Amino acid sequence: MIKRIIDFSHQLLSDTVQKNDTVIDATAGNGNDTFFLSKLVGEKGHVIAFDIQKQAISTVHEMLKQHHITNTQVIHDSHENVSNYLDGVKQLSGAIFNLGYLPKGDKTIITHGESTVKAIQSMFDFLKVNGIIVLVIYHGHEGGKQEKEILLQYVKNLSQKTYNVLQYGFINQKNNPPFIIAIEKRC
Amino acid sequence: MIKRIIDFSHQLLSDTVQKNDTVIDATAGNGNDTFFLSKLVGEKGHVIAFDIQKQAISTVHEMLKQHHITNTQVIHDSHENVSNYLDGVKQLSGAIFNLGYLPKGDKTIITHGESTVKAIQSMFDFLKVNGIIVLVIYHGHEGGKQEKEILLQYVKNLSQKTYNVLQYGFINQKNNPPFIIAIEKRC
Repeated sequence: MIKRIIDFSHQLLSDTVQKNDTVIDATAGNGNDTFFLSKLVGEKGHVIAFDIQKQAISTVHEMLKQHHITNTQVIHDSHENVSNYLDGVKQLSGAIFNLGYLPKGDKTIITHGESTVKAIQSMFDFLKVNGIIVLVIYHGHEGGKQEKEILLQYVKNLSQKTYNVLQYGFINQKNNPPFIIAIEKRC
Repeated sequence: MIKRIIDFSHQLLSDTVQKNDTVIDATAGNGNDTFFLSKLVGEKGHVIAFDIQKQAISTVHEMLKQHHITNTQVIHDSHENVSNYLDGVKQLSGAIFNLGYLPKGDKTIITHGESTVKAIQSMFDFLKVNGIIVLVIYHGHEGGKQEKEILLQYVKNLSQKTYNVLQYGFINQKNNPPFIIAIEKRC
């Protein structure tokens, strides 16, 4: 079966991220990707999870407690300030963004193209060769189209010598289905 | 590492096609996909490979002989006539098209959108549920853009109830890089 969006986003990360790595969940949200990443890097790895919403931070803290996860740091700030939190981090092997609004949350609180780009750029300095940044782009909500366009414009112009930029999505679905952009560092 | 185009096209097929299945190489060309498929379905499977060019047919026959492959039928005809050759075939689990011109061959002999669509439609009747048709679309040559547009228009309009249509490609590369369209039958 062709992998669906979430499965393929996880596949990209598990093909790249190894035990003991440091990785980022840029949009912790309901904590599903945070949980996935925490298992992927193992007990001695390190997950840094960001969210701007208190509701998400509480949910993720609860999830970590429930599963006795100790390798994950939860940061109540925007991912655009990621560089403030990377002291002591040597390199990142992966990161994931779920762009849009918090499922079951306030639909007016959304991610924005400019801050997403700023976050990506900050991560590039720490991303190891063959490391990957995965963006799952939901864009059916108000403001979603603008963010999608800013991001596509930005990633299409990344040098092909330095990055591979993959687009993965289903193109015969109605209602603006989400799609994936994955950026892999080549050198 | 993010899979490159040819590797991902083969991944899609190996995720779907099983031993003893019947599959189609719609554009045998230099025989690389034919070889791959013949291994995938095993000795008791069946590969039907099409090409309109004598040069390709000879190359593929030579390849089959060299590797002692006996499960592959090579047909010197256009894939648009595929239905003429499916007597006795119960179902197909996969097919692959490499669209464009024969590498190192005559660049004026190219695949065309209309005949590609006709071939796909003929295969749908035989495609099993969860079966897959993979199109690797080269479109940098003269006529390539037209074919690409005809195909995208066609596949985008396939019912999402019946088919999943995936697009997979690198979007920051110059010179019209090839990309994949994969069509999976849902029901």
